[in-house]
Amino acid sequence: MKFITKLKRRLDTLNSHLCVGLDSQYDRIPQDLRKNKETGRAIFDFNRRIVDATYNQVVAYKINLAFYDAYGIEGLRALYLTTSYVKINYPRIPLLADCKRSEIDNSASMIKKQIFNWLGFDCIMVTPWFGYDAVKAYLDNEEQGVLIYVHDSNPSACDLQDLKLKNGKFLYEVVAEKIVNKWNQNGNIIVEAGSTYPRQLKRVRQIVGEEMPILTAGIGSQGGSIKDLKGLFGKNRRRLFVNISRAVIFSGTDRVDYFETVAKTAKRFRQELLKIAKN
Amino acid sequence: MKFITKLKRRLDTLNSHLCVGLDSQYDRIPQDLRKNKETGRAIFDFNRRIVDATYNQVVAYKINLAFYDAYGIEGLRALYLTTSYVKINYPRIPLLADCKRSEIDNSASMIKKQIFNWLGFDCIMVTPWFGYDAVKAYLDNEEQGVLIYVHDSNPSACDLQDLKLKNGKFLYEVVAEKIVNKWNQNGNIIVEAGSTYPRQLKRVRQIVGEEMPILTAGIGSQGGSIKDLKGLFGKNRRRLFVNISRAVIFSGTDRVDYFETVAKTAKRFRQELLKIAKN
Repeated sequence: MKFITKLKRRLDTLNSHLCVGLDSQYDRIPQDLRKNKETGRAIFDFNRRIVDATYNQVVAYKINLAFYDAYGIEGLRALYLTTSYVKINYPRIPLLADCKRSEIDNSASMIKKQIFNWLGFDCIMVTPWFGYDAVKAYLDNEEQGVLIYVHDSNPSACDLQDLKLKNGKFLYEVVAEKIVNKWNQNGNIIVEAGSTYPRQLKRVRQIVGEEMPILTAGIGSQGGSIKDLKGLFGKNRRRLFVNISRAVIFSGTDRVDYFETVAKTAKRFRQELLKIAKN
Repeated sequence: MKFITKLKRRLDTLNSHLCVGLDSQYDRIPQDLRKNKETGRAIFDFNRRIVDATYNQVVAYKINLAFYDAYGIEGLRALYLTTSYVKINYPRIPLLADCKRSEIDNSASMIKKQIFNWLGFDCIMVTPWFGYDAVKAYLDNEEQGVLIYVHDSNPSACDLQDLKLKNGKFLYEVVAEKIVNKWNQNGNIIVEAGSTYPRQLKRVRQIVGEEMPILTAGIGSQGGSIKDLKGLFGKNRRRLFVNISRAVIFSGTDRVDYFETVAKTAKRFRQELLKIAKN
């Protein structure tokens, strides 16, 4: 199935806007879950239980590979086990590879081998810095989608992205326009725009239209507000999804059942997002 | 030792401008070197012999991690063995991690764990798309340098990088200026500018000055010309180095001694570059 179809189907049928980021930093995993286990096994066991606790609340899972790469071969093992687990048990949930890999030609074909063929992700997240070459490398297989970082949520995202161009537009606007008018020929591209810059997020929605799914980030730890998402959910109010990582996966406490708390947290975020979407 | 000191010392003492890219794609390694070996071992054995054949010709080695990530745990093993081998046997040669990883805060600390602490690279290569946050994350340890892609060598590099800003400057010029005026506070940043855009490469040299090392790419397979590098070598003609990957490491043939040919190829490129540098 085409990536974009898989994602839209999930958005259309689940009645949720929550994407959970499995940024499962080893040393933040509860100690009793790490005890007597190899690092890779501990991370995977944690993820497996996070996924089991949240799968019916989430549109997609996003995995920032940095949190796995840091642990070498053990991290890679955890990553492979995690993506395999989601694919086998919850095949309808899209998996996004947050790796910011922008490669071309030969090296892009290597990234595809890793991200899609080996790890089984559905979508790769790339920066537009190298232009269309780094995007088109990932467009030849319809099952494999591409997410482009159009406007990010971090404080210095504006350093480049908000520069004003000679034609009067901002750089991030031109990127969004290029995606819509030129790059998205096979309809398999989605975009990211951070919630910490609500004006720019709104503008990205205007440019990409009501139909294209937007992933947003920065809610919670980075200071973005759910309220600012009002009116930006796109067609049928089902075309925006919001990544939340640590505030969900590390919301448990050791004292009560960790994963019950995680499930409740995910449910709470889902409901908050639904309220704004329907408002 | 500070990364920039290590790199400049190498540039000052070796009389070479050649950087060799260990983009050692498994299926391009001569078949008899792959026979009866696990993938990771075969890639490492190949790299080890490439390094032994070229170490006295090269300023630095650059490794694009994509060529290792593609082979999962075996690729990671090859990568670890390769960086360890260079560090132990040729500790004066800087190792550049071509991974285009632009992370911030928490996830950047994970990348540092991987790239610097575990793999022992001397320099990480990052895109400026996310602004200063993604650069400063790597500036706190002087042994660890940062290379920023200012203007790339691929055909669509101009999609964004050559956009004209309202202030009359091109985007890549503003990035170079930000590096010089704001980001490079501890003097540990270097830049990349592709040889396939000689006008822009020249402009980058003007902006960053004669002292900052520039890595250039795109010679050979991408159509860049060594002749166009004339006059761009910076202070004492020792501040430019040129990455060449496949044209060196896959220059051997099966019939004669593969690595003797590789050594000759590296020597030839070194001499060609020296001729232009001194011209």
